[in-house]
Amino acid sequence: CVGLAALIDLVHLMFYPPRCDDDDASCPIDEEVAKLLELKARLGGDDGKHQFVLKTAKGTRDYNPKQMAIREKVFNTIISCFKRHGAETIDTPVFELKETLTGKYGEDSKLIYDLKDQGGELLSLRYDLTVPFARYLAMNKITNIKRYHIAKVYRRDNPAMTRGRYREFYQCDFDIAGQYDAMIPDAECLKIVHEILSELDLGDFRIKVNDRRILDGMFAVCGVPDDKFRTICSTVDKLDKMPWEDVKKEMVNEKGLSEEAADQIGEYVSMQGGMDLAERLLQDHKMSQSKQACAGLSDIKLLFSFLQLFQVTDKVVFDLSLARGLDYYTGIIYEAVLTQAGVAAVSNEAQNGANAEESVSVGSVAGGGRYDGLVGMFDPKGRKVPCVGVSIGIERIFSIMEQKAEASAEKVRTTEVQVMVASAQKNLLEERLRLVTELWNAGIKAEVMYKKNPKLLSQLQHCEESGIPLVAILGEQELKDGVVKLRVVATREEIDIARTDLTSEIRRRTSEA
Amino acid sequence: CVGLAALIDLVHLMFYPPRCDDDDASCPIDEEVAKLLELKARLGGDDGKHQFVLKTAKGTRDYNPKQMAIREKVFNTIISCFKRHGAETIDTPVFELKETLTGKYGEDSKLIYDLKDQGGELLSLRYDLTVPFARYLAMNKITNIKRYHIAKVYRRDNPAMTRGRYREFYQCDFDIAGQYDAMIPDAECLKIVHEILSELDLGDFRIKVNDRRILDGMFAVCGVPDDKFRTICSTVDKLDKMPWEDVKKEMVNEKGLSEEAADQIGEYVSMQGGMDLAERLLQDHKMSQSKQACAGLSDIKLLFSFLQLFQVTDKVVFDLSLARGLDYYTGIIYEAVLTQAGVAAVSNEAQNGANAEESVSVGSVAGGGRYDGLVGMFDPKGRKVPCVGVSIGIERIFSIMEQKAEASAEKVRTTEVQVMVASAQKNLLEERLRLVTELWNAGIKAEVMYKKNPKLLSQLQHCEESGIPLVAILGEQELKDGVVKLRVVATREEIDIARTDLTSEIRRRTSEA
Repeated sequence: CVGLAALIDLVHLMFYPPRCDDDDASCPIDEEVAKLLELKARLGGDDGKHQFVLKTAKGTRDYNPKQMAIREKVFNTIISCFKRHGAETIDTPVFELKETLTGKYGEDSKLIYDLKDQGGELLSLRYDLTVPFARYLAMNKITNIKRYHIAKVYRRDNPAMTRGRYREFYQCDFDIAGQYDAMIPDAECLKIVHEILSELDLGDFRIKVNDRRILDGMFAVCGVPDDKFRTICSTVDKLDKMPWEDVKKEMVNEKGLSEEAADQIGEYVSMQGGMDLAERLLQDHKMSQSKQACAGLSDIKLLFSFLQLFQVTDKVVFDLSLARGLDYYTGIIYEAVLTQAGVAAVSNEAQNGANAEESVSVGSVAGGGRYDGLVGMFDPKGRKVPCVGVSIGIERIFSIMEQKAEASAEKVRTTEVQVMVASAQKNLLEERLRLVTELWNAGIKAEVMYKKNPKLLSQLQHCEESGIPLVAILGEQELKDGVVKLRVVATREEIDIARTDLTSEIRRRTSEA
Repeated sequence: CVGLAALIDLVHLMFYPPRCDDDDASCPIDEEVAKLLELKARLGGDDGKHQFVLKTAKGTRDYNPKQMAIREKVFNTIISCFKRHGAETIDTPVFELKETLTGKYGEDSKLIYDLKDQGGELLSLRYDLTVPFARYLAMNKITNIKRYHIAKVYRRDNPAMTRGRYREFYQCDFDIAGQYDAMIPDAECLKIVHEILSELDLGDFRIKVNDRRILDGMFAVCGVPDDKFRTICSTVDKLDKMPWEDVKKEMVNEKGLSEEAADQIGEYVSMQGGMDLAERLLQDHKMSQSKQACAGLSDIKLLFSFLQLFQVTDKVVFDLSLARGLDYYTGIIYEAVLTQAGVAAVSNEAQNGANAEESVSVGSVAGGGRYDGLVGMFDPKGRKVPCVGVSIGIERIFSIMEQKAEASAEKVRTTEVQVMVASAQKNLLEERLRLVTELWNAGIKAEVMYKKNPKLLSQLQHCEESGIPLVAILGEQELKDGVVKLRVVATREEIDIARTDLTSEIRRRTSEA
């Protein structure tokens, strides 16, 4: 029980919170000075008007229509895949009670955005979709579900936006919760990554697989003290960015590991293979001493047998150097990387500032694993719900798709308009509105210029610019004859179509068959 | 220029902000006490474990898969309509610089969620989509665009969630920005409302139309002092919830209007009609004295002529009592209401706690208008971009659709799975995985149970529960014969299908033709 004096102290702290209570690297004094100078500049404006700073918040961006068109295409591919595998979807609020997020992200907690205390609950913006998912399961006592969730998450990180890193960014998660037979849902997650990356056509890729238990077992048999597992693991995690020599140096010099232990780890983490490697390690005289490692290795074997049935072993590799950072993984872990030279260059650049905690690898575009303990952290009785999931690195995929679109000759369309209703003559606004109404009512995507007497040229220009393939041109003669002149923008071909046949003709010419 | 002393004061204020600087009705002391008691209870827990409060933040909710299925259906209908009219889409960050929102919402500004000052910029959650849209246009110097934006907005309001009001809720906006000939884009907005409400099949509806200039002109000719236009306008706005007598009382007793002026207003605001009413008022000896009113009335006439061509006049009514609250409207305003008895009852309930600022009317499901000045507020040189738009009251539509789904016998499906791959015998896991892989690779939506040897009954039960129409059953005999037993869940009919014909047979049976 907390004493009265302590309560009074707490009250005081609440009314006069110390300002520098977070670990943010930026100096608050500098920030204050900058703020004051900005304020001064604004107040000093001679016209008395507010001088707005016309910008989005640091680390955020607007999506313009072109970016939205690409985003929509990527989402459609991914969602189709999730639905093909029978997933439902849920949504959670953008903010959670602060305490829901407390203690889930280790030292990254300092990156959580808090809302101002305006009287009421203490709230924070969600940091990922996994913790809200676990909270949702515990709160609704759901013990099995297969769900996807695509939404934005928030991290008060130092953004490197030119390199595709933001403070507001999408996550795209698929998870299977429930008590099932070993490795079947785990294998389906990898099948899903395989399908999505193949369909998005991002170039060749590899899916690296490892198991938290194999890592822990390996550390144990190599003589890493128990309390150093976590920190040595995060050093191993750097192997995709640093050569072994540097990783070893960090282990020995910074983390205080013995040279022998480091060398033994070095031998293991250079190993890559498939089911055969798992079999070999099960026979390994050192590795086989760890029960944990053996359990992990047996599961890797089982996993590969399912992956064979799913026809995805061509891309999957068992890689002992894979050591994803997140604390909550308890079993299998995986990460997909793009291996194509061109994309690797892009991603290399994106890599420099990458968040060490996720998407760690050069060209990493998906990652995930099994986390059997997280839901139990929310359950009052600690009841566990085993989970396995994958997060698609959608922001990096957007960047790649945007760059591909830039490089390609083909223009990205931002609307789906099939036909523009136009006229060459004056005083036909009413006739144009009548015709476009006919088309809308028939479900045709159609536009008309919002001018009484637009020039034909400007109407055609609009079609060129926005990729509208057809123009339905009305004139006195056409009206008299009960026809519409249908112009194909690409070829400039023009033909008269009976008005009654117009919608079917437009449909025929714009159906993607 | 601000003096040094003032700067020092500002610094002091920034380090020791006064706590009670907002107009929130809730008492901060009570809140603090509640918080401390909660803290105490938590610290006092005897097992040392955190006692999580398992809930979402006040005024927010999760969407479960059923709600998401309904939400997706509604969104698809609305987005199809927006696309049919050639709209692009954009997205903006969930938070804006605080100053971007400052001075746009009048006294409702107190409902804005601010982020905690964690060093850096002062940020607020977006309050609507219109102000970010205007900021986007000004920032990117865009002078014409037709865009929709569907996203969540945040208001620190006192929620009445059982009545469908939340602190986090969707807005669904369509806007046309650009200098065009009068009333053409305005009419298209009404056409869009007509299409969406018809397609969603929510029952009969009316779209009320008025013009801010007609209201202002009416107030002028009725003798309302200039500085009372706004406040009298907000009283008129209550006419859909209060009888005229009460509205008049508020005008006279609270707002200090003369009884004569109030009576004159009372006469006008009881008028409803179509183009004919606009013509009549243009001849009205009082109304015709106001240039503003005449401009508005002429535009109403023009609007109705376009609405006739768009074939939507059956639902549109010119209603002088319509007076939407938002400050930024400069011309035409409109609001769609559901008129069906059944729905009205639902909405009536939803109404009691409704935000007076928007969706004001009983059963209001869409609203909007012309706002030609807002973008100019963001442009450093004050350049205006005329805009007209409509916001679909999507949260109310969700509620209605959810209630309809509850009432209907038909089950809402939360997945689109076409077939379940099952077996009646043991040891066929591998065969099931092989078959489901074939189906996935062919683009069929398929599921398999994550068990080595699931019971046939539990597999069939899962189909019943989640509405999967077909089961592909494998057994030793089927494997030998190269067939699959296809079972229709609804009829229990079973037929053997050659394995090579399976995907086409599933497609044939599950295509909605």
